[in-house]
Amino acid sequence: MAWSDELAQHSEAPDMLTRTYLTSAHHGAAAQLAEWMCAAGMSVRRDMAGNVIGRYEGLTADAPALLTGSHFDTVRNGGKYDGNLGILLPIACVQQWHEAGKRFPFAIEIIGFAEEEGVRFKATLLGSRAAAGTFDMAVLDNLDDSGQRMRDVMAASGFHASGLGKAAYAPDAVLAFVEVHIEQGPVLLNNDLPLGVVTAISGASRFMVEVEGLAGHAGTVPMEMRRDAAMAAAEIGLYIEQRCSGTRGLVGTVGQFNVPNGAANVVPGKTIFSIDIRAEQDAIRQAAVSDVLAKIEQIAARRNVVIQTRKTHEAASVPCAPWLQQQLAGAIEESGLALRHLPSGAGHDAMAMAAITDVAMLFVRCGNGGISHHPDEIMSTADAALGARVFSRFVENFKH
Amino acid sequence: MAWSDELAQHSEAPDMLTRTYLTSAHHGAAAQLAEWMCAAGMSVRRDMAGNVIGRYEGLTADAPALLTGSHFDTVRNGGKYDGNLGILLPIACVQQWHEAGKRFPFAIEIIGFAEEEGVRFKATLLGSRAAAGTFDMAVLDNLDDSGQRMRDVMAASGFHASGLGKAAYAPDAVLAFVEVHIEQGPVLLNNDLPLGVVTAISGASRFMVEVEGLAGHAGTVPMEMRRDAAMAAAEIGLYIEQRCSGTRGLVGTVGQFNVPNGAANVVPGKTIFSIDIRAEQDAIRQAAVSDVLAKIEQIAARRNVVIQTRKTHEAASVPCAPWLQQQLAGAIEESGLALRHLPSGAGHDAMAMAAITDVAMLFVRCGNGGISHHPDEIMSTADAALGARVFSRFVENFKH
Repeated sequence: MAWSDELAQHSEAPDMLTRTYLTSAHHGAAAQLAEWMCAAGMSVRRDMAGNVIGRYEGLTADAPALLTGSHFDTVRNGGKYDGNLGILLPIACVQQWHEAGKRFPFAIEIIGFAEEEGVRFKATLLGSRAAAGTFDMAVLDNLDDSGQRMRDVMAASGFHASGLGKAAYAPDAVLAFVEVHIEQGPVLLNNDLPLGVVTAISGASRFMVEVEGLAGHAGTVPMEMRRDAAMAAAEIGLYIEQRCSGTRGLVGTVGQFNVPNGAANVVPGKTIFSIDIRAEQDAIRQAAVSDVLAKIEQIAARRNVVIQTRKTHEAASVPCAPWLQQQLAGAIEESGLALRHLPSGAGHDAMAMAAITDVAMLFVRCGNGGISHHPDEIMSTADAALGARVFSRFVENFKH
Repeated sequence: MAWSDELAQHSEAPDMLTRTYLTSAHHGAAAQLAEWMCAAGMSVRRDMAGNVIGRYEGLTADAPALLTGSHFDTVRNGGKYDGNLGILLPIACVQQWHEAGKRFPFAIEIIGFAEEEGVRFKATLLGSRAAAGTFDMAVLDNLDDSGQRMRDVMAASGFHASGLGKAAYAPDAVLAFVEVHIEQGPVLLNNDLPLGVVTAISGASRFMVEVEGLAGHAGTVPMEMRRDAAMAAAEIGLYIEQRCSGTRGLVGTVGQFNVPNGAANVVPGKTIFSIDIRAEQDAIRQAAVSDVLAKIEQIAARRNVVIQTRKTHEAASVPCAPWLQQQLAGAIEESGLALRHLPSGAGHDAMAMAAITDVAMLFVRCGNGGISHHPDEIMSTADAALGARVFSRFVENFKH
């Protein structure tokens, strides 16, 4: 917990935590992580994506590694546990083994992923994609808000795109990837449980929708002659809410909703809104998406408005490996805690790591209603301790 | 129709029609109206609000006057008939009587109201309120966007606030006020009728509403744990639409609807929207408003969100005098046209004139789906001719 507070001092902004890829705050955090890894008995290296990797050798040199870790970049005005917890908690565990002189038949590598949130260069999972060998070289030409190119910013920091290929793990050097992360949601909190085992990282479909009706005077156009864009959008929103309720692991959200240049005395001629639908199982998500799209056509026809939907994102669900879930579940139960499985509605580095190895995630309860990506994000010391106990037990019992 | 085109040249902006109170475009239009009134055989005066008043004497000097007229200011990028038609059409009628040497037992006064829309100084009906003796002296201190005070702008144009009191008509000098106006809506168009008799200028209630829910991650907060501000607002909007449908003369509109800083992956924590409810009869409007407010409380409780409603406007319905409606209806039927009564959902100068005399309005069909306050506002030459014929007949048959 003290490390979390200390790491949060590395911020671009004075009174909030903002730490985006390859800013000086980001370099400072990387150096700090390397120092703690080193003090915990690990050898530390950086790859050409800027990931900070600590290796705790196993009983034999060059043993394949159990990977863990998470990201140390943050959103703007974010919380101090999102990402960072998944680096700091394993370092604390390694430190204990190091002090006790304990080694395993496998190495442990803790990866501080340099970038996951996608804030600075509008591309996410940069660190874990490099580690998984799936880095998209096209994003090297992305610009930040000040017009600097990612490739140049990396080079100025000593990270050369030509070396990104070498950041990729060889699959046979890796046993699995297990990520510890705060839940960033209220499920564990509302169920009074400190920890949970993630079943899958939900797949997601996202759309931007534009409704074109007919603007008119709010006083002079009778109700039955209207082609109100906002009410068509409202009806679609409520359908999404209803369609996505009652199915476990399925969620649907209208996060943006706007009548451009709306005026109190004008019937809306246009409305723009977003749709985000996620589910643990792809078939459940796809069925919901297809019902929503069909409903949109019905509503457009009935209300005589034109509705254009543009898909902006689609990602399949990434299942967590059952054998890893089982071992995490075992560690939870042996620690005397109740077991809860839950999907992760948010994306995580484990999504990218799944390209080269089996993945699993251990969620730690988020306080404050489950709020995250916000300075009010909190986690209790007791929950952190339980997380560390369960993660240690998982590693100590780990069987490949 | 030619006069409409010519008057529309007096604009503040090159490629659109914008003519706000006491700009040089406005002065130019006033001078043009005065010239046409004069040429039609009227004596012309201006009052201290800037209204342009043409008087066509009756058979005896100082006979009480039948008043007509409308406004010659416009909204930004408005249409050329809104307001202006109600000045130009009567001038054309007077011109015919003047040429034929025809006089009536009453005088006719055509008032070009200098201000109705409220664009420049954020206060509406300035011209007709001055004529009705209900001018609110407090608005003289209103500023325009460039920081100029209304009082000073008036004085610089030769209109002195101290003389506003004299702009008011003495009630015994007036027989009635009858305003010709384009409908600014689609009712006549959709019913295939060129003209209609207004029953009342609808009363209106307007609110701004702020819904405060709880922001959350669109992927991690299960549906049943959400307090989604936008969906609460959507539900209220659809209730308003349903509650205000099916009752003639009642309309309800959510013209503004916005999730501030909305993001596709965030459950809306806040939503702001407007409510505008109008009805011909005040009791019908008040019943709808009270049902909507009750529904808002229900929805707030059920969805566990906080909803604040702030009333921003309330105006009672202004009925048109039955005896004047009857004489307008007679003129329509004698012209061989089908009769249609309809309420005016928009406000008009007749609202203010009702303070000193009985009022009535003749609506002329608006083309193009009924669009107004927009350059696409149109009206056909044939409809203008029918309007002039009916208005002439009304005046020729007028009995007080």
